[in-house]
Amino acid sequence: MGPIGIFDSGIGGLTVARAACDLLPTESILYFGDTAHLPYGEKSPELIRKYSTRIALHLVNSGCKAIVVACNSASSNSLEQVRDVVGPNIPVIDMVHPIVESLYNSTDDLGSNKSVGLIGTRATISSGLYKSAIDRLNDIKDVKLELLSRPTPLLASAIEEGFYNDTIPSAVLDAYLEDGFFDKVDSMILGCTHYPLVRKEVISLLPKSVDVIDPPAIVAEALKQKLEALGILSDKEKIQNRFQVSDLTENFKLGAQRFFGSDIDLEEVVLS
Amino acid sequence: MGPIGIFDSGIGGLTVARAACDLLPTESILYFGDTAHLPYGEKSPELIRKYSTRIALHLVNSGCKAIVVACNSASSNSLEQVRDVVGPNIPVIDMVHPIVESLYNSTDDLGSNKSVGLIGTRATISSGLYKSAIDRLNDIKDVKLELLSRPTPLLASAIEEGFYNDTIPSAVLDAYLEDGFFDKVDSMILGCTHYPLVRKEVISLLPKSVDVIDPPAIVAEALKQKLEALGILSDKEKIQNRFQVSDLTENFKLGAQRFFGSDIDLEEVVLS
Repeated sequence: MGPIGIFDSGIGGLTVARAACDLLPTESILYFGDTAHLPYGEKSPELIRKYSTRIALHLVNSGCKAIVVACNSASSNSLEQVRDVVGPNIPVIDMVHPIVESLYNSTDDLGSNKSVGLIGTRATISSGLYKSAIDRLNDIKDVKLELLSRPTPLLASAIEEGFYNDTIPSAVLDAYLEDGFFDKVDSMILGCTHYPLVRKEVISLLPKSVDVIDPPAIVAEALKQKLEALGILSDKEKIQNRFQVSDLTENFKLGAQRFFGSDIDLEEVVLS
Repeated sequence: MGPIGIFDSGIGGLTVARAACDLLPTESILYFGDTAHLPYGEKSPELIRKYSTRIALHLVNSGCKAIVVACNSASSNSLEQVRDVVGPNIPVIDMVHPIVESLYNSTDDLGSNKSVGLIGTRATISSGLYKSAIDRLNDIKDVKLELLSRPTPLLASAIEEGFYNDTIPSAVLDAYLEDGFFDKVDSMILGCTHYPLVRKEVISLLPKSVDVIDPPAIVAEALKQKLEALGILSDKEKIQNRFQVSDLTENFKLGAQRFFGSDIDLEEVVLS
């Protein structure tokens, strides 16, 4: 049946790999972090597409039965291209659509002009994919959920550097959102796979009534439902998780442990 | 005679290009910023070498008469390899050696155990090149200049994001150097081509007597001396400056203006 392929520009996507492991303990994971090219968040759509499709092909060629694009910048800019290269028989789960769909499932009074806030990289926000996904569901469900989005590019770098449980993420968020952004939203999407590590800091800056969405858990659930629907859930014991990166440094080893929540072995795999 | 080739992982090296333009107004510059692969500061030495040598070859093939490695991470990890690929007839100026030599020229009482502080990326600090260059000159000059170095990786990202003249760089520096690092040094090397933009913030955190070294001006002077020594200074009018990047986004255009200090046209050139 093959493993589930999960990829990200770096190690942030390990928060999604962690959620997938927890929810689907009999599945094997093949993770690929493109540390040679991270971060994707400031790169052009064309370059993100080039990197993403190369990784997706690598995962398919390694026998993966499903692909999770565990990077908002890649999901927002390369989903169509990734689907094209992996072909119609392998499901591709992205970070954007499951989150947007969850908004409509969880909020029972969307009719009253609710606002959802989104923070993420520049590449994620400027792609407009969250916006178009929300517009589409607004039409279908005849509601008026409004999206307020704001790029917060330094936040992922700060987290990658180990600045969480710390004053730096709050200072960075303050600098980007000092105009009262947080006061205007009814729920918040943490639109970058690094951000779950500063969930606490985000919550502390929000008015109490704001619901903070947990993307890794939602994406893992969407993955499970897709595997079930296709009848390709593993019914055997898990074989092995493997974690590959395109550039291996001591700092990535430390960071990987932080994002995955337990020790993992990284191996370097250079794609060409 | 050809232009002077100047390269960096991104747009920070434009501070060096600016200093070179100011000091050598009759020279043409060909700048290359590897924005497709930035930042180099967290990447492995092997990967930095791969990227640096590819760019150096491109600059030589474009007719450059001299190369400036305007990136401390690249200077610290790939200088030998860059020299190898450009060959013995083209001078290569790096960020490390001119700075270290300037310490011995400017400080007149080095015998009394002076300490120099260095902040930079992880790749710069862990390469140990500043340390070995200082050790070598200590031996030659029979003095005991001590190097105290500290990686401050988030600082370059913060500057690249436009956070200068701002509280964020100071907060970041405080977080890295809160153990009183600044109190122990007699002079400070800003060991990353982004850092001149936060020179003011660094100075405000330092005891008054600490001398803050200005790498772009020193490297431009070293370049001038090298061109003079080789008799290849241009005696004609400047022809043209060109600025190439490997990935072109709106944000890089804005940033380039910020680092160079005036409007420039960026063109995208993909190396393979």
